[in-house]
Amino acid sequence: MRLSALLAPTLREIPGEAEIASHQLMLRAGLMRKVAAGIYTFLPLGHRAIAKVEAIVREEMDREGCQEVRLPIVQPAELWLETGRWAEYGEEMWRVKDRHGRQFCLGPTHEEIITDLVRKEVRSYRQLPLILYQIQNKYRDEIRPRFGVMRAREFIMKDAYSFDRDEEGMRASYQRMYDAYTRIFTRCGLEFRAVLADPGAIGGNYTHEFMALADTGEASLVYCDACGYAANVERAEAAAPAPAAAPGPSAPAPPVRVHTPNSRTIAEVAAALGVEPRELAKQLFYWAVHADGRQELVAVLLRGDRELNEVKLKNHLGALHLRLATPEEVRAATGVPLGFAGPVGLRGVRLLADAEVMAEPSLVVGANEEDFHLRGAVPGRDFRPDEVADLRLVGAGDPCPGCGAPLLARRGIEVGQVFQLGTKYSQAMRATFLDERGQERPAVMGCYGIGITRTVAAVIEQHHDEDGIIWPASVAPYQAVVVPVNWGDAGQRETAEAIYRGLLAAGVEACLDDRDERAGVKFKDADLYGFPFRVTVGPRALAEGRVEVVDRRTRRVLAVPREGAAAAVQERVEAALAGLAPRA
Amino acid sequence: MRLSALLAPTLREIPGEAEIASHQLMLRAGLMRKVAAGIYTFLPLGHRAIAKVEAIVREEMDREGCQEVRLPIVQPAELWLETGRWAEYGEEMWRVKDRHGRQFCLGPTHEEIITDLVRKEVRSYRQLPLILYQIQNKYRDEIRPRFGVMRAREFIMKDAYSFDRDEEGMRASYQRMYDAYTRIFTRCGLEFRAVLADPGAIGGNYTHEFMALADTGEASLVYCDACGYAANVERAEAAAPAPAAAPGPSAPAPPVRVHTPNSRTIAEVAAALGVEPRELAKQLFYWAVHADGRQELVAVLLRGDRELNEVKLKNHLGALHLRLATPEEVRAATGVPLGFAGPVGLRGVRLLADAEVMAEPSLVVGANEEDFHLRGAVPGRDFRPDEVADLRLVGAGDPCPGCGAPLLARRGIEVGQVFQLGTKYSQAMRATFLDERGQERPAVMGCYGIGITRTVAAVIEQHHDEDGIIWPASVAPYQAVVVPVNWGDAGQRETAEAIYRGLLAAGVEACLDDRDERAGVKFKDADLYGFPFRVTVGPRALAEGRVEVVDRRTRRVLAVPREGAAAAVQERVEAALAGLAPRA
Repeated sequence: MRLSALLAPTLREIPGEAEIASHQLMLRAGLMRKVAAGIYTFLPLGHRAIAKVEAIVREEMDREGCQEVRLPIVQPAELWLETGRWAEYGEEMWRVKDRHGRQFCLGPTHEEIITDLVRKEVRSYRQLPLILYQIQNKYRDEIRPRFGVMRAREFIMKDAYSFDRDEEGMRASYQRMYDAYTRIFTRCGLEFRAVLADPGAIGGNYTHEFMALADTGEASLVYCDACGYAANVERAEAAAPAPAAAPGPSAPAPPVRVHTPNSRTIAEVAAALGVEPRELAKQLFYWAVHADGRQELVAVLLRGDRELNEVKLKNHLGALHLRLATPEEVRAATGVPLGFAGPVGLRGVRLLADAEVMAEPSLVVGANEEDFHLRGAVPGRDFRPDEVADLRLVGAGDPCPGCGAPLLARRGIEVGQVFQLGTKYSQAMRATFLDERGQERPAVMGCYGIGITRTVAAVIEQHHDEDGIIWPASVAPYQAVVVPVNWGDAGQRETAEAIYRGLLAAGVEACLDDRDERAGVKFKDADLYGFPFRVTVGPRALAEGRVEVVDRRTRRVLAVPREGAAAAVQERVEAALAGLAPRA
Repeated sequence: MRLSALLAPTLREIPGEAEIASHQLMLRAGLMRKVAAGIYTFLPLGHRAIAKVEAIVREEMDREGCQEVRLPIVQPAELWLETGRWAEYGEEMWRVKDRHGRQFCLGPTHEEIITDLVRKEVRSYRQLPLILYQIQNKYRDEIRPRFGVMRAREFIMKDAYSFDRDEEGMRASYQRMYDAYTRIFTRCGLEFRAVLADPGAIGGNYTHEFMALADTGEASLVYCDACGYAANVERAEAAAPAPAAAPGPSAPAPPVRVHTPNSRTIAEVAAALGVEPRELAKQLFYWAVHADGRQELVAVLLRGDRELNEVKLKNHLGALHLRLATPEEVRAATGVPLGFAGPVGLRGVRLLADAEVMAEPSLVVGANEEDFHLRGAVPGRDFRPDEVADLRLVGAGDPCPGCGAPLLARRGIEVGQVFQLGTKYSQAMRATFLDERGQERPAVMGCYGIGITRTVAAVIEQHHDEDGIIWPASVAPYQAVVVPVNWGDAGQRETAEAIYRGLLAAGVEACLDDRDERAGVKFKDADLYGFPFRVTVGPRALAEGRVEVVDRRTRRVLAVPREGAAAAVQERVEAALAGLAPRA
């Protein structure tokens, strides 16, 4: 491609609304333009990067025997009513009526459509296992689209669905997809972790998210380099706490009532009493809202230096969602202001405690009396929670639940997710098959997504510097650019043209900067566009019959004879691709 | 691909709603399934055929230097309001609101989006010419979706848009697209004609439709094998009529009033008077509805054996649309019942005559008196129309307007269309650039569509027999299938597996029928699926070390040594592809 003809308009100014590097660079390097909030046009360079990721995804899906299909974007409401998700999805679902008033949605995902297909077309165990996938636009009417394609309203996804005879088959399909995803993100040049995650509303009971590590990621994850444990913080289990020290020969004293006027927060009480926050118990009050509409007030005890993991609490209670109780509601339930409520003598409220609380020999707790706390309250003696569970957020430095080594914490961009769905959809929609003995059984399903446009953005988050994008060779829209310093110089121009033709003949995806621009502008653009390799044809080296091959990532410059330039670039591109190949 | 694993469910029964062969076969051979009216899921075989057409389209577009982009499906109403098409499009446009109540549509086409992009990103003549294209789902809320993907509500299109400095540049871009389309449809194995067509509501003034010839096509076209003229009947010009025979030495007699009680139609009057329909004049009354709401009654004269071309009339009048006047309205305007109104003495109604009428020496016309006609009315003497124009439908046997040879008529499926748009959109949306002299000028545009899913269906319309599809090698989901007569027989199975591996190694897209089915079932399925080549591994030939290669189209069977089977198929596939290559 000649840059004079390529529609890749660069921006000097960083658009104000673009907060993260990938969003800024996708605009600055002319990969995309905004059409409406969360809706983008992808220009040639953006399209090519997307197509590269799609091709890698297709190769790895096909390698696992998956079959590609194309499912409708416009989906009839009837199918979503069968699974109950027409109501569940809420405002995030774009809904549309046809001229006859029939209801449709723009598919946010395709479980219903694919399950409808399979229930009609699969009859026998002999047709299973089956994994179908597609690459397609998806729609979510985000309340606040942001970060460019990271949280867009129209975006490209690869979604796949597996159908198996039984749980064991499903686990095998899940593993195949897990392995394919590992190869895909490796080939894209991403540093990532597959983390255990909370299944959330989609259903099912076991899921991994593939997280590209990046400080700008919206997700938090913890991982252990010793044993390989990795989890989204929402899902990360706490290691079992060390048991409380055995009581000494004499029984500890009963708790002491201490005056703590106006000390409501953990920090205030700890300061007033001269103790560490971890020596206190924190008591939180939540309303659990259940699917049947029932609401229940619960109290949750945590060590003073810990944070509640709301997902764990919600899952423990089997609640649809949680709402923090207001100070007035706490006072109405306990008779004291928030900050002085405690577990000792608490009545009429279901009390939950994080497992760690029960491992403390004693704690400072609210006295259920305004302006007073209790010192030396012994868990299990002075108060007995209704339930004890793992309810806290785990973070960096906490012991790994797998091996006890200190956990590391990072932020991540969720680029893929694999789910064991089980029979949630196949039962709701009666997608059954006849097994070897003629028994009708629901297919056991998995589903597997990759955010294609989000993967492109994640690659940029990990591969850029202040000058622009540094594309991995596998995802680069073009792998090399030939830049004559002065296009007006016939010798440089002819050499550049010859090298460009040589690159194309060698199968290198190349551009030629044939613009009548200053060298500085051309170098700046090459850096911004992020070509992995640049061939500079300049007067001094050319006088000696040489040109320079510049590596965008290392900035290393290699002078090569002009006749060998195309081969040198080809070799480097191949080496770069080989470096991204998954280990066997 | 092993057929035991392929999701390609066949149907024995022809689905009732499928009226045409391609619709029936796309369902019967498991290429697609209906999800809602005009909305389909494409299964693996359907997806692969679509992907083949897409790949051909991409290659030929890229060969012409076009750049691929991806434009949004969900498009903001604001852009469509700028061109006035938000109102014009009517109920065929799917409209959708977001959670904030903002209006969007599901793009039926992308002129607005692309013009918005270009007005923002193109500033200088140096950036032109520019041709951008995409392959994307399109949406039209058809009132009566039918014929499968021929008239669907969700369908796949390639759309391209050219931007040029001037009219001459636009014509050059148009020609490049015309040539690319010719190569594309040739490679797809279609018999087609590029026909002149009426631009209709999209605007612009010159357009060709690419019509795949098929009796089931919705369009009618005429063409001349002598000079190459070809046009949609809506657009086909009538050859200039031979001038009226010179009047004899004595002036012809004045018209004679004849009694024609109850004879209103052409057939009735011709019978009553014992003349041919072509000796009569037919007078039609229409209301022309103009863009400003004004309505005007017009009378149109045609030879009695001719049909009015409403598109020609509408264009001649510059009307938004036409409505046939009711008998009451005709009576109110002329004072006589429909059937007796005529051009002689007609008052207060704009009278148009088809050019052919004026070439007749004399005609029978309505007398403007109930139950009477006039014989021997001489055009130009007894009546003078306000305007004379080419207004009639042209059909088979009519003289070619190019060379006078008799025209041929066929029905066709519109698989592509190329448009010279001019500056309609660039002026409405101010997509301007600075020319060489610094003058601001609107870009001159063209637009170019290919119905991808419709092309697949058109290929099937032209390539099938009673047993199923007969894919051209270029579009076939798989080019060959290996069928062992008895999968249970180890020798056949091993030979089949070896040939299958050989085909894949040779780059032939192949399937292996590894199902434990009767040979008859497997042969029937192979015919229905339409593999261009079948390798049959049967006991008798195998006993002699041979297998059979069967050509799906010719049914010709060739016995080859089993070691040479893969090479024999590869050779035939390559020959088939070469046979579809466009002539240089």
